[in-house]
Amino acid sequence: MIVVMEPSATKDQIEAIIRRVQEAGLSAHVSEGVTRTVIGIVGDSHTKELLRQSLEASPGVEKVVPILQPFKLVSREFRSEKTVVQVGNVRFGTDQIVVIAGPCAVESREQVLATAKAVKASGASMLRGGAFKPRTSPYSFQGLEEEGLKYLAEAREMTGLPVVTEAMDARQLELVIQYADMIQIGARNMQNYTLLRDAGRSRHPILLKRGPGATIQELLLAAEYILSEGNYQVVLCERGIRGFDNYTRYTLDLSAVPVLQQLSHLPVIVDPSQGTGRWKLVGPMSRAAVAAGADGLIIEVHPEPDRALSDGPQQLTFENFDRLMREIRLVAEAIGRYV
Amino acid sequence: MIVVMEPSATKDQIEAIIRRVQEAGLSAHVSEGVTRTVIGIVGDSHTKELLRQSLEASPGVEKVVPILQPFKLVSREFRSEKTVVQVGNVRFGTDQIVVIAGPCAVESREQVLATAKAVKASGASMLRGGAFKPRTSPYSFQGLEEEGLKYLAEAREMTGLPVVTEAMDARQLELVIQYADMIQIGARNMQNYTLLRDAGRSRHPILLKRGPGATIQELLLAAEYILSEGNYQVVLCERGIRGFDNYTRYTLDLSAVPVLQQLSHLPVIVDPSQGTGRWKLVGPMSRAAVAAGADGLIIEVHPEPDRALSDGPQQLTFENFDRLMREIRLVAEAIGRYV
Amino acid sequence: MIVVMEPSATKDQIEAIIRRVQEAGLSAHVSEGVTRTVIGIVGDSHTKELLRQSLEASPGVEKVVPILQPFKLVSREFRSEKTVVQVGNVRFGTDQIVVIAGPCAVESREQVLATAKAVKASGASMLRGGAFKPRTSPYSFQGLEEEGLKYLAEAREMTGLPVVTEAMDARQLELVIQYADMIQIGARNMQNYTLLRDAGRSRHPILLKRGPGATIQELLLAAEYILSEGNYQVVLCERGIRGFDNYTRYTLDLSAVPVLQQLSHLPVIVDPSQGTGRWKLVGPMSRAAVAAGADGLIIEVHPEPDRALSDGPQQLTFENFDRLMREIRLVAEAIGRYV
Amino acid sequence: MIVVMEPSATKDQIEAIIRRVQEAGLSAHVSEGVTRTVIGIVGDSHTKELLRQSLEASPGVEKVVPILQPFKLVSREFRSEKTVVQVGNVRFGTDQIVVIAGPCAVESREQVLATAKAVKASGASMLRGGAFKPRTSPYSFQGLEEEGLKYLAEAREMTGLPVVTEAMDARQLELVIQYADMIQIGARNMQNYTLLRDAGRSRHPILLKRGPGATIQELLLAAEYILSEGNYQVVLCERGIRGFDNYTRYTLDLSAVPVLQQLSHLPVIVDPSQGTGRWKLVGPMSRAAVAAGADGLIIEVHPEPDRALSDGPQQLTFENFDRLMREIRLVAEAIGRYV
Repeated sequence: MIVVMEPSATKDQIEAIIRRVQEAGLSAHVSEGVTRTVIGIVGDSHTKELLRQSLEASPGVEKVVPILQPFKLVSREFRSEKTVVQVGNVRFGTDQIVVIAGPCAVESREQVLATAKAVKASGASMLRGGAFKPRTSPYSFQGLEEEGLKYLAEAREMTGLPVVTEAMDARQLELVIQYADMIQIGARNMQNYTLLRDAGRSRHPILLKRGPGATIQELLLAAEYILSEGNYQVVLCERGIRGFDNYTRYTLDLSAVPVLQQLSHLPVIVDPSQGTGRWKLVGPMSRAAVAAGADGLIIEVHPEPDRALSDGPQQLTFENFDRLMREIRLVAEAIGRYV
Repeated sequence: MIVVMEPSATKDQIEAIIRRVQEAGLSAHVSEGVTRTVIGIVGDSHTKELLRQSLEASPGVEKVVPILQPFKLVSREFRSEKTVVQVGNVRFGTDQIVVIAGPCAVESREQVLATAKAVKASGASMLRGGAFKPRTSPYSFQGLEEEGLKYLAEAREMTGLPVVTEAMDARQLELVIQYADMIQIGARNMQNYTLLRDAGRSRHPILLKRGPGATIQELLLAAEYILSEGNYQVVLCERGIRGFDNYTRYTLDLSAVPVLQQLSHLPVIVDPSQGTGRWKLVGPMSRAAVAAGADGLIIEVHPEPDRALSDGPQQLTFENFDRLMREIRLVAEAIGRYV
Repeated sequence: MIVVMEPSATKDQIEAIIRRVQEAGLSAHVSEGVTRTVIGIVGDSHTKELLRQSLEASPGVEKVVPILQPFKLVSREFRSEKTVVQVGNVRFGTDQIVVIAGPCAVESREQVLATAKAVKASGASMLRGGAFKPRTSPYSFQGLEEEGLKYLAEAREMTGLPVVTEAMDARQLELVIQYADMIQIGARNMQNYTLLRDAGRSRHPILLKRGPGATIQELLLAAEYILSEGNYQVVLCERGIRGFDNYTRYTLDLSAVPVLQQLSHLPVIVDPSQGTGRWKLVGPMSRAAVAAGADGLIIEVHPEPDRALSDGPQQLTFENFDRLMREIRLVAEAIGRYV
Repeated sequence: MIVVMEPSATKDQIEAIIRRVQEAGLSAHVSEGVTRTVIGIVGDSHTKELLRQSLEASPGVEKVVPILQPFKLVSREFRSEKTVVQVGNVRFGTDQIVVIAGPCAVESREQVLATAKAVKASGASMLRGGAFKPRTSPYSFQGLEEEGLKYLAEAREMTGLPVVTEAMDARQLELVIQYADMIQIGARNMQNYTLLRDAGRSRHPILLKRGPGATIQELLLAAEYILSEGNYQVVLCERGIRGFDNYTRYTLDLSAVPVLQQLSHLPVIVDPSQGTGRWKLVGPMSRAAVAAGADGLIIEVHPEPDRALSDGPQQLTFENFDRLMREIRLVAEAIGRYV
């Protein structure tokens, strides 16, 4: 950690900083530049983090520059080998690219069974579908709740595809754990720390989606909450960030894939359906995500997108999903992986 | 609602849309332009909203343009007069500008009592202080929890200042209601719909903060969740959005104040401490918020910011807060209001 | 174009709008909804565009919603077939993915000749290199100017690779045209309309880069300036937009590739070096750009990136560029194209 | 400047960095932390800046953290007293808040004379009006050019108000200098370095607007281009940055005002018309800008905004401008300044 003093900082102010650092059991290395004094701080990283903000508020300090990343358990430095997350017979973080597919929301038994059958036939490895739907408007369809979970479980029986679905609070989490193989923590709850800690204690595999306003560091620290409770079975998901253009619903940040993989050992997948909001872009962006090195995709598929109760414009028909699977299979092979 | 067809849309596709609209009990007005057919849809707004996304996913449709705002109870059209939210003896939404002040986090009994006394002396109307702290990192100080709530209640006894503090889940909500006069739903939980609904059922006054990645429409729809459960005692708070510059922690979006006031009858306050992350900017941005028409401010004050356990760099000393109060009093008077 | 009146709009205000529309030779279709009157305007699109902003400023008007895109010559509706842009023996907009490679800045004769030879050997189709460098700081290296252009021309003689290089004003444009095969208009000058018009009159092929703060519509309208002067030889380039994360220099917006290709007939290429600012991300994002359907790439290569006078951190070594070419060749084949 | 080595950096890599630093005439202070070696570099700042990017590209280096700001002549460290920029009898950078007002574009002799008279009567200190208009679309009204400049000059004769107007290239600059008292470099040309250098050599006062995608550091470096040519008569202008919300055209970043004033000695003004795009927000945001400490405002005023040839929705009527002047006069007094 580096403390940069203001050009006008007094000797007393500099000495006060050094005393604070030493009292905390850290050591300080002072370097006097032409216009400014800079103090390097060495020692236990946890102590430094606790001290950081108070130093930044001290008189005479211009800024404090952290040198180390603030996350630990999720980092490559903590574990250099890629983590493999196992969900039923599916493994994230190997050479296989895991494709999760299914409707945005579970709307009926028929809809989810038909979709499960279709995506399985096209080669998907897992089934998705929302039973509890976080909707921007209270007047939108909010999901079938436990009934939806039952249909998902039935679809798993029928197809053998493990199921991932979202939980938004502790009560839903308990319920979802009974039916699903993997729990999604959605973008809107990425910094719902109560839920993150509960998920960490559950020992169930977690799919953690990046919030549209969240930095990469914030995503990794959200994952750190889960790991710090002892649950290392976490898959990260890029699903579009806030951008200023309106042709897409969000800006899909594909460079987050290699960045996250360089910083962390956790598998990283991409949601091109949420990330673009337009089904015509799902094909190109799925191919791009695979080529960028994503460990999987999560894709919305619906028997009749123009009859969907939520997010119709971003869901693929069975036929379009089948074409997409054929395309990404070729791209995966081109980079030495498989679907 | 306007459906814009693609230039290549066929007659059959246009007729299919008209049929869907009429089946839903709405009426369709077709207008054939030079290159494109446009279909205006008139009728019940709830039905239109349910139909919107499925129309957008229909073959031949280029885009669907909503004409009305998707929020209702929070809108000026629903209630043209400004809502007054009463918290103890404090009223938001009048000519008075309500100043809430106190430490970022409750750290000790002494700290909170001293701060309460000081901000009261300088003219603050309410006390803030976090007992449950949503922290980006699991390794940061997470708050004193119920002990902190007790200190806040004691500070209220001593000073008469009503208290606002944050709850992050249903369990905390129950506890906070017992101690505090107003419940804060923080930026990270702005779209935690379970919490919003619980807050709506509580009948306690709510301070709802805008998420840094949230649009104004999303903020209003989050408030709509609370109002739709019957609780109209909601104050909105702008606290900085994601921007691309690093000199401030967030970009404080002051134009959100008049925009929200034009769209909604709910009071709107500003958090310049969180919104800038730097105490040197809190003064100018507080004055600016008042001049822009904000109904209040929420400001972080600490006996010793350079010893704070959280967010030291953005907290004011007692002396700086006192100066700020004198400044904003003059600005308030200049626009015909008072503090 | 749709004019949405305020709920409080008077009859007179509505009639005034209709009169304005009719005076302009357009026709108005009035539709009275439950809360609001909506006026559809049909007729010549140029007239509508001129009227748009003044209607938006008229009393009683809530908003004006344009239905058509404001760009014309660059649009798929104007020309449904993809444009092929020919630069020497290189053709953008075919099944071939054109790779442009070379140093960020021309630094010496040796540097540019060595790089040209190396990238040619690895399979690049064109040479890049800045002779006039737009640098954020006036104290950074500003380029070798005409001397640099001569080295580029010599490198073309030697390798047969056509050359693209940037011009920042009319005088530079004249000079660059004498030496280069394609003129780059850089991100900082995307809305330098004088330069765009001059480029439009030049009849030389143009590489137009998206500004980091520019919307897709603004990029297409910048291209429209060039086409409207009669020059249809324009290639668009996505090179990263402003995002809020600091792990990359910009946020590379790959979904812009399919969006631009759906809206326009112009070829679209991607600059992963500028777009990420980090050489370790250039490989994954190049593969992703190809998989997303980009018509080409422009990549920075330097004999010794750690000795470069500009943007060292984002330039590839010869060896890394060679590996990248082998990788993207496989991805190109996977989607039925070639490098 | 601080060089942070990767945890895996070898001794040879660390020594190579130290050698590079010493060869450049700088000194290196090595500090070995628990996981990482950090090298502090002390010496001439220009040399450090030239070395920075190449060090960042060197093997074993994780990142390079600059300690000093890259701008010099514009900084408070170079000149601690506020610069006063004199334009005719008007002075920016004193206790007076300078209000510049006038139409977005000069449309006719009558329009500009009437507006000049009206804004003078309401208390404006300077006249604005575009003769050369940078328009997003080539089909929009592009300005009256020299004819417009003549009308502006006539309006100055009549009212005594100094004139500011935009120039977009060298040729226009020459012309504008003959007619106007201050030259505007617009947001789209903020990084048009040729124009910046020409403006620096002109010795005419310059109004430099921040580009919507530009950081504060980039704005200051753009100003540095002008000052480095010897022209210190520069006023900075915040006029809205790219945000993700659509209720306003841009996000007016008012915290940029105190930030710029802390970093630089140059006067800072605000453009709430461009910055919001909606006349109803111009009043509140003008008051807020003054309260935040802006040294001036630039406001669009038009005799009939609903007949304007450009940007009607953001222009004030004479009456609304008069009310605004009365309001900001009171706010200015509240903070010890005057209009």
